[in-house]
Amino acid sequence: MLIDGKKIAAEVKAEIAARVRQLVASGNRPPHLAAILVGHDGASETYVANKVKACHECGFRSTLIRFDSDVTQTALLDAISGLNSNPDIDGFIVQLPLPPQIDEQAIVEAIDYRKDVDGFHPINVGRLALGLPCYVSATPQGIALLLERYGIATEGKHCVVLGRSNIVGRPTAALLMQKSYPGNCTVTVCHSATEHLEQITRMADILIAAIGVPHFVKPEMVKPGAVVIDVGTTRLPSKLTHSGWKLHGDVDFDSVAPLCSAISPVPGGVGPMTIASLMLNTLLAATGEVYPKR
Amino acid sequence: MLIDGKKIAAEVKAEIAARVRQLVASGNRPPHLAAILVGHDGASETYVANKVKACHECGFRSTLIRFDSDVTQTALLDAISGLNSNPDIDGFIVQLPLPPQIDEQAIVEAIDYRKDVDGFHPINVGRLALGLPCYVSATPQGIALLLERYGIATEGKHCVVLGRSNIVGRPTAALLMQKSYPGNCTVTVCHSATEHLEQITRMADILIAAIGVPHFVKPEMVKPGAVVIDVGTTRLPSKLTHSGWKLHGDVDFDSVAPLCSAISPVPGGVGPMTIASLMLNTLLAATGEVYPKR
Repeated sequence: MLIDGKKIAAEVKAEIAARVRQLVASGNRPPHLAAILVGHDGASETYVANKVKACHECGFRSTLIRFDSDVTQTALLDAISGLNSNPDIDGFIVQLPLPPQIDEQAIVEAIDYRKDVDGFHPINVGRLALGLPCYVSATPQGIALLLERYGIATEGKHCVVLGRSNIVGRPTAALLMQKSYPGNCTVTVCHSATEHLEQITRMADILIAAIGVPHFVKPEMVKPGAVVIDVGTTRLPSKLTHSGWKLHGDVDFDSVAPLCSAISPVPGGVGPMTIASLMLNTLLAATGEVYPKR
Repeated sequence: MLIDGKKIAAEVKAEIAARVRQLVASGNRPPHLAAILVGHDGASETYVANKVKACHECGFRSTLIRFDSDVTQTALLDAISGLNSNPDIDGFIVQLPLPPQIDEQAIVEAIDYRKDVDGFHPINVGRLALGLPCYVSATPQGIALLLERYGIATEGKHCVVLGRSNIVGRPTAALLMQKSYPGNCTVTVCHSATEHLEQITRMADILIAAIGVPHFVKPEMVKPGAVVIDVGTTRLPSKLTHSGWKLHGDVDFDSVAPLCSAISPVPGGVGPMTIASLMLNTLLAATGEVYPKR
């Protein structure tokens, strides 16, 4: 079975749009997401443009605040402070990475956690680990939505996560070990130092690859019947595409797919879900379902 | 090899005391820990008394603030607010559990995370998950100290944690997967829903049992040569002790110990380390090594 992230993302956004129409019909203003974009990095421009587009699809208001790449930390902190105190903004993001003169962690921690719809603030990370209501960051939530929408059994299953990054591996592990569906998995986190990797990945009922090494996962690493979720998004040059590059996953799709009960492709798997997750968090910020509105 | 937590805890406290003597000799006041104790629960009284005693051993000042069990949440929050703003207090704890009229999570979150030497505030939990400087809670830190002091190899080793509690299982997993020693383990978290448990625990190079089921870990669950850390502390009635009860670990010690390369007993293993860890956090709070002093 192919896990179609593009289709599920479209469904999730359509559900959000329906909910927004209800909210507006009841006399509420639409949810409002702001984004801070520093500089003109190509990938960041694309991501932010896609987020703004998704806001439009969901019926949200969006505000884009741009700074040149020589912005000072003080100016950024001032902008964040303004968004924190602006009751017209439900949630906002600061597109990463930031230029070297900026302390990225200080920026993330300056965001009011109640508006931190990226889920990167330590309070949201901590509340996720503790099983408390929070904004779950986009990729782990996107993975969970895919498992849920495809009705994949997770309770008691062994989920092996390849990679321990702060934005994918660790929070995905935290999410999938929680006492709820999708979750309640036995979770193993593997990484660059792991010994006997193949022996461990072959135990996985659900294998989540998030290491950023193209085609790393080969058939001999996968148990027949496993569910494989590919989070890899490495851009490699290509002569076959108009853009001149092609997106590669961490899974050697062609050789691994025949073994799997379900597999998500790259592109079209987890990728489209991340923006749908951000929209979901923004809706929850607007309705006060995670943190009560003041 | 028997992992002697009592001995290591005494060593750690002696090292802290030496450091405090240096601090005081350089003209600083000694570290100062405060504890809030509500009601007269026997176990809580014992824990707090032991913490006060450990402060004395380490050369710390300690302050005990008592409330009756009918205390209001407002009164507790006022006391916390006072400790947060008191520059003479480096760190403080609120002994848990609290009576039913109190929202325990609200109390934990009211503590200034820079004085949260128990490491229970979501900011400290989140910073641990993110690999940032923080107060690591007592039990995970106690386990890490035991592994370190006994020179147990952890890099690339498979550590299986039995139990996913917020105070032991999850933070221990977060700590041992970090890119540092002791850590850099492949980490698996098992729990009540885990299928094929024995198959998984038998893969463990390091097995950490924290489920609170006496004698749950039997020899057939343990790989020969494994390191076993027992975090269980279940009190069962006993006719053989003066107190009328005896502490039981999660590991069936007598049958499992012969298999292990190292094992921590109960009592005398992780237990004594938890208070040593609290003292260590209080020292770090006093010196501003985790969060700069304002």
